[in-house]
Amino acid sequence: MKVLIVGATGTLGKLLVKDLSNRHEIIEASKSTAQYSVDITSDESVRRLFDQIGKVDAIVSVAGNIHFGLINEMTSEQFNFGLQDKLLGQVRLTLIGQHFVNDGGSITLTSGILSHDPIRCGANVSVVNAAVDAFALSAAIEIGRGIRINSVSPSVLTQSWETYGAYFPGFDPVPGEKVVMAFRKSIEGNQTGKSYQAW
Amino acid sequence: MKVLIVGATGTLGKLLVKDLSNRHEIIEASKSTAQYSVDITSDESVRRLFDQIGKVDAIVSVAGNIHFGLINEMTSEQFNFGLQDKLLGQVRLTLIGQHFVNDGGSITLTSGILSHDPIRCGANVSVVNAAVDAFALSAAIEIGRGIRINSVSPSVLTQSWETYGAYFPGFDPVPGEKVVMAFRKSIEGNQTGKSYQAW
Repeated sequence: MKVLIVGATGTLGKLLVKDLSNRHEIIEASKSTAQYSVDITSDESVRRLFDQIGKVDAIVSVAGNIHFGLINEMTSEQFNFGLQDKLLGQVRLTLIGQHFVNDGGSITLTSGILSHDPIRCGANVSVVNAAVDAFALSAAIEIGRGIRINSVSPSVLTQSWETYGAYFPGFDPVPGEKVVMAFRKSIEGNQTGKSYQAW
Repeated sequence: MKVLIVGATGTLGKLLVKDLSNRHEIIEASKSTAQYSVDITSDESVRRLFDQIGKVDAIVSVAGNIHFGLINEMTSEQFNFGLQDKLLGQVRLTLIGQHFVNDGGSITLTSGILSHDPIRCGANVSVVNAAVDAFALSAAIEIGRGIRINSVSPSVLTQSWETYGAYFPGFDPVPGEKVVMAFRKSIEGNQTGKSYQAW
């Protein structure tokens, strides 16, 4: 399969490239340093990416930023940051990208555990993650042409625990390799409208 | 209690005013024709509202618009409409309003059944509703001062079935009076971080 990975240079992106390239033709994209450059907050940038790469069998997104901060101090502008980036960015990739996915292909987005298990300072993340899961659930019933759409919802990666672990008291980090398996279910399996919880 | 109802002139808003005014002092706000005018998509407008009305014991939101349309034809701009209106509008009301809620008070937002049970053309609604539920869940753990925050997730109202029923095949409409009971649980009860499913 021809698989586009957006966010290919991130921690999870690199693990995905490593695993999927054993079986598929991989197109790597990210905001800055990958084979193809793309800004998922821009329609024009996403359109340009697909104009360059053409049709694919799978779109995989491990991209998107959020706002991390105290609810008592948060502004609506700060809250909107995650809505525009990790949420609408991945939605945009789907809305534009669906027209470049071959019949029977798939789209896999990234959400995260905070949708179900909130932490201090994480309201924006919880909201964005729940929204991404709901987008996969709802888009799946009408996207058509046999295209499947799922999300993968990881816990904090073992690989990122040293940096972020202090914010996640009592959480059990998940090895990135286990999260990659959830992506494989979505890309190489046959389910749709699912959120795969890699917790 | 002093209860602010935003969206007081809508179908559900009117039912809430009717019921709650038996036991509470009600402040009615809506985009246009209520006692107080407020546009929840504007920080300035929301701030002006609270500057006018001062402290309250409960904020109730039954406000917000979404985009309804086919996923195959949807643009990111259209998708952003619901994010900016029903989602960020209610988040904004919370972020600004929390500082005007008395200790031990409550904030109650409105989501909806499509978060769990999607329909054709409803992806934006599903996403916004799931996001509102996740916002209540996550904001509740850190909002502080004994302030509670919940969402009420109604099915299509019996009162709106004639207008919208055709889009909801097989759905069981819920009497607005039953949805009002869920709001009472949130306003007059003691739970927090909940999504009350009035289905």
